[in-house]
Parts: sequence; structure tokens; C-alpha cells
Amino acid sequence: MQLIADNLQITRPVVADAVERRDPLPIADLVKRCVAAGAEAIDINPGPLKRNPRETMRFLVETVQSVTDRPILLDTTNPAAIEEGLAACRGTAIINGFSLEREKCNHILPLAKAFGVDIIGYLLDPDSHVPTDETDCFAIALELLAEMEKAGVDRHRLIIDPVIAPLIWGNGIAHNRAVLALIRTLPDLTGFPVRTIAGISNLTSGPGPKEKKRLAETTFLPMLAAAGLDMALMNVFHEETVRTVRACNGLIRQEIFSWAGF
Amino acid sequence: MQLIADNLQITRPVVADAVERRDPLPIADLVKRCVAAGAEAIDINPGPLKRNPRETMRFLVETVQSVTDRPILLDTTNPAAIEEGLAACRGTAIINGFSLEREKCNHILPLAKAFGVDIIGYLLDPDSHVPTDETDCFAIALELLAEMEKAGVDRHRLIIDPVIAPLIWGNGIAHNRAVLALIRTLPDLTGFPVRTIAGISNLTSGPGPKEKKRLAETTFLPMLAAAGLDMALMNVFHEETVRTVRACNGLIRQEIFSWAGF
Repeated sequence: MQLIADNLQITRPVVADAVERRDPLPIADLVKRCVAAGAEAIDINPGPLKRNPRETMRFLVETVQSVTDRPILLDTTNPAAIEEGLAACRGTAIINGFSLEREKCNHILPLAKAFGVDIIGYLLDPDSHVPTDETDCFAIALELLAEMEKAGVDRHRLIIDPVIAPLIWGNGIAHNRAVLALIRTLPDLTGFPVRTIAGISNLTSGPGPKEKKRLAETTFLPMLAAAGLDMALMNVFHEETVRTVRACNGLIRQEIFSWAGF
Repeated sequence: MQLIADNLQITRPVVADAVERRDPLPIADLVKRCVAAGAEAIDINPGPLKRNPRETMRFLVETVQSVTDRPILLDTTNPAAIEEGLAACRGTAIINGFSLEREKCNHILPLAKAFGVDIIGYLLDPDSHVPTDETDCFAIALELLAEMEKAGVDRHRLIIDPVIAPLIWGNGIAHNRAVLALIRTLPDLTGFPVRTIAGISNLTSGPGPKEKKRLAETTFLPMLAAAGLDMALMNVFHEETVRTVRACNGLIRQEIFSWAGF
């Protein structure tokens, strides 16, 4: 399971302020700390970027690249910003992401072909709602693949995000149980080892005691890992959760055990 | 997932000493602390009991029953001790357990019928070795059921223990991955919702840093829970691990989420 930082997001005042002032230092510092904490890739989430989408995304990609050459996820609904980010990226980029929304299939998905990069597909219905049952999820997974094919993008470029629900949602627990089954079953359904990603921070969004939120993360992550999750997008400053990711890899991915690798 | 204490075992000097002196107090105190820590059942493991098997087991069962009415697991290879324990037990008893060893099928399994109690069956080959691959495990599960039938014991009385391997064993990681697949698949294989139990302390037996051992427990337990494990037999004084068991139940068994139940 690869560890991807979701820390670089515009909803954090320090990031919003640095973007506003075009000050690379706070962002470079944040990214350095993410890498030190174990981040293997950095998700850049600048929001929908209604103003200056291209310039802002270029600023962010260049700032991240000034301190690390780890892969970058371009996490916005703005196609122009994604395109500029892809153009600015010297290393590996991943588009995060598209869904069955017409707008996204038409304007974001083609960028995966144009730049030859991986793209995350959300398991959401065409109105961007979380589907209510497993059968719907499977149907959506197949439709995402059909859209990939229509757009001429190699199916192996797809990384599916089954969209973890906040636990405090009415059907959050049941949905997240379905997510586990889905991750386990998707490779059989699609007929190839399709990769999966999950946003862990979603699980505990909303009110709740901090210690129990961490416990929910460290308990649900091993379940995701055992189901076969490839990438965990999360706050890499949650030390216990990062330790758990490493332990998951120790138990699931290794062939030879050693406490040292734990 | 039910939490079962493995703390009452003869390998602990305080237990060995109390048994030797027939002093119920240290044992009663230990059991009280197990219950306070969240134990929903108590495993009594007095070793093979070469001397005074009946008297010793009766002493232990009566001492446990003097402080709790939770279910008792009779964990010994000595059939006379199991029989006496069953006779002494006023509440629910579970035999722990039998395997395909001829001796055990002939002398332990019939006690499940005689006393109408649940019995744990170990997924071990007839020489009591851990099988090397998943296919062998499945074959052994079916043989355990065949032995149940031969002995006239209701198949729903069987609780399968797939035997977690110590991580430091040569093939420990691979075996434990197979255990996860097995727990998930056993109900399909047997054709009924067969229950499963796992000894968590086995995972980290042998040398290793304490903190990493706890991390291995709290990481592997959610994997077992998501696979469908019914009972976790473990040291209930490991607070983080007990917290994880509760969180697993919050994520897997509940229908309505609340941080309070976490």
C-alpha cells in the first residue's frame, strides 16, 4: 500500500495564504515534512480554481517539484488546471480524477490520453452521488472502464477510488463494508489487476473525539490493505496511521518477515 | 468479534504457583481483572496435566466460576481433565479442542456429544503440524466436519481454529495470509456459517520489540475481523489490542454508527 499525502489542500489556511501570496516557502516546507513523514506521492488539491487556474496549478506543481521528485496527484475538477499541471510536471503525474459526470468524461478524461498518465476514476453515479448498493458500484466500475475505452485511454491507466463514506453518515458503516468487498472483487470483475485508491480522511470527517478518529483510521486501514487497496491517500502527519500503513505492508506485501521492516 | 482471555495459563508463574498451592485467590484476582478488561469468556489452559488432571481442572473451573459466569474454554489435551471440567461447569463450556490426531478424535471429540457443548477444531494435519497450503487447510476443515459427523456431534457445534503462525516462522506471513482467505471462505466451503476462533498471541510469539509486537496485533486483528473471525483469543491486558477489537466491532458488526460505542 502506497502512502500518499493529502496534506497539501487549499482548505488549510497556511496553504490558502501561501497560494494567495504566491509564497512558495510554506508549501515547500509542508511538502518536505510530508516526505519526511513517509509520503510516497503528493496530492495537490487547490480546490476548483475559479480564478487563475493555470497559473495557480503551475505555481503549486513547481513548488512541490522544487523539493521532491515523488509522483504528484493533480486533484481538482478544473480541466485547465489539470492540463497546466500535467505540462508543468517533470516526473510522474496522476490525474485525480474523473467520474461519470459528462463534463468530466469530456474534458478531464482525454487529458490522460494526451499526456499518457494514470487517472483516478471515482465510483460515483453520473450526478456524483455515492451509490447506495454494491451492484450499483460494480455497474459504475464497468462504466468507468467503458468511458476509458471510448476516450482511447489504456484501461491499465485506471485507478479506482471506491469513495469511503464518513462513518457519521446514515449508511456510512454499511457503505464502507461494501467498499471492502468491492476492492477485493474489482480485479475479478474487470478481468485485470485494476488498482485502487482510497481517501482515508473521509472516514472520520465531521465531529468526533480525535483519539477515536485515529483509532477508526488505524482499524479500517488494515481491513482495506487486506482487501487489496493499492494507495492510501491520507494525512501523513497522523503518526499512528502511518505506522499502521507500514505494518500492513509488513503483513501483506512482504514475503520474508522482519521486525526491522515493521 | 468476541474477546476471550488467554491469560489464565499454567506457563505464567503466578498461575502455576497458585495451582500448586491450591490457592484460589491469585486466580480469582486474575480472572476478575480479565473481566474488567473486557473478556467475554475465559480460556483455562492448565497444560497437559500429567498429575491430578481431574482435581486440578475442577479446582480451576470452580475458582473461575466463583468470580464470573462468563463462558469457560477448557484448553488442554487431557480428556479426563476436560470431562471433569465439563462436569464442574455450571454455565457455558467450550472444549478447546480437538484435531485430526486419532487420540483426540477418539477421546476428546465424544465429550462434545456427551455434554452437548461447542468444540474447537484445529486446522492441523493428523500429526498436528500446520499445513503448508490453502488446499490442505480446506481438506482438513472438511475432515474435521467428517469426524464430527462420525462422532454424532452436531456440525453447528464446531468452531474452527485456523492456527495463526508466529510471524518469525519461515513461512509465517504467507501462512497468515492464507488464514485470512480461509476464514473468509470457510462458510462457503462448509455450506453453513461455521464459526472461527484465532489465538492472537501466537502471532508475535518469540523474540521481538514489545511495541512492534503490539502494532502487529492491532494491525492483523482488523484483517481477521474483516475476514469474519468470530472469536479472538488473546491477552486481554494488551489495552491497545482490546481497543482495536472494540473498534473492529464498531466498523464491522454495528449497523448504526456512534463514537460512543467505539
